[in-house]
Amino acid sequence: MEELYFITSNKGKFKEAEAKIKHLDIELIQLRLDYPEIQASDLKEIALYGLDFCSERFKSPFFLEDSGLFIDELNSFPGPYSRYVQETIGNDGILKLLLGVINRRAYFKSVVALYDKGPHTFEGISMGKISNEIRGKEGFGFDPIFIPLESSKTFGEISTEEKNKYSHRAKALDAMVKYLENGVE
Amino acid sequence: MEELYFITSNKGKFKEAEAKIKHLDIELIQLRLDYPEIQASDLKEIALYGLDFCSERFKSPFFLEDSGLFIDELNSFPGPYSRYVQETIGNDGILKLLLGVINRRAYFKSVVALYDKGPHTFEGISMGKISNEIRGKEGFGFDPIFIPLESSKTFGEISTEEKNKYSHRAKALDAMVKYLENGVE
Repeated sequence: MEELYFITSNKGKFKEAEAKIKHLDIELIQLRLDYPEIQASDLKEIALYGLDFCSERFKSPFFLEDSGLFIDELNSFPGPYSRYVQETIGNDGILKLLLGVINRRAYFKSVVALYDKGPHTFEGISMGKISNEIRGKEGFGFDPIFIPLESSKTFGEISTEEKNKYSHRAKALDAMVKYLENGVE
Repeated sequence: MEELYFITSNKGKFKEAEAKIKHLDIELIQLRLDYPEIQASDLKEIALYGLDFCSERFKSPFFLEDSGLFIDELNSFPGPYSRYVQETIGNDGILKLLLGVINRRAYFKSVVALYDKGPHTFEGISMGKISNEIRGKEGFGFDPIFIPLESSKTFGEISTEEKNKYSHRAKALDAMVKYLENGVE
């Protein structure tokens, strides 16, 4: 494999993936291609539906990624609808929903779906909690309100480099990189 | 047309549609069929995608319906994700998000998508506002926190019969019924 396409319109995600893949002899190319994201509570189902749609239209090896923030006390909201929730009620809305709530446990989940000769999926989870206020300007999305277990800082307060050591997306991308190196899932 | 199928798993919606259609010489049948709902901000797009999916599998005349609650101050949240939001943060969550918010304007929108010889869509809107507390046990979903312009009561405090006079779904169904009677959209 010489070229690998990452189908995403999100610059931040592409930057994270690029850093993960740069030691391999593969050129990573960002591709903006609209594909339908279905409404489902399972990220893997959403990713595979998108993969299937794209693989009928695009013949080079590619992957796409879907991720979500799952908050215990809110019955896993916003889950697979994280981007929409981010664009509407935003981080302020999440903090408002958790006002006075003691259990602030949450996790980020990432599913990377790769298509080479067939479909493959790789998952990563980052356990943590929701902060009491917005902190930091790094990253994107819910990063400034999520404190991973490994840190006392939010994802908004750490560099992409540090985030790439243990974020959900990093773990999913690591699993894909391992597969690309060894050909084993 | 002797039989018309309403593809829905929602008893409440079926009940509303049945009351609207009973004067026509058509038997309305509830059909539970899973179809993909895509993530999109436009209800019509979601409904037409579902219609397309179902029409490839099901050959009798049918319709499906998608509706959502759009709240001004929350950038139209929860919009097309109303069911998911209802199932996770619920009415309590919406009231919490609007705590201390003065502009409580909101509207319900319904899109009915009918397939007979081809696709047809019908829309209905109910303007109103979000109440300060949960009121009433009628209806379903966000009904107990939505006060339509035409009333001082929430949809949760009025009967299906009264709701069927001016609800968003009633208006969309009325438009479909008119089409079924006259063959004109």
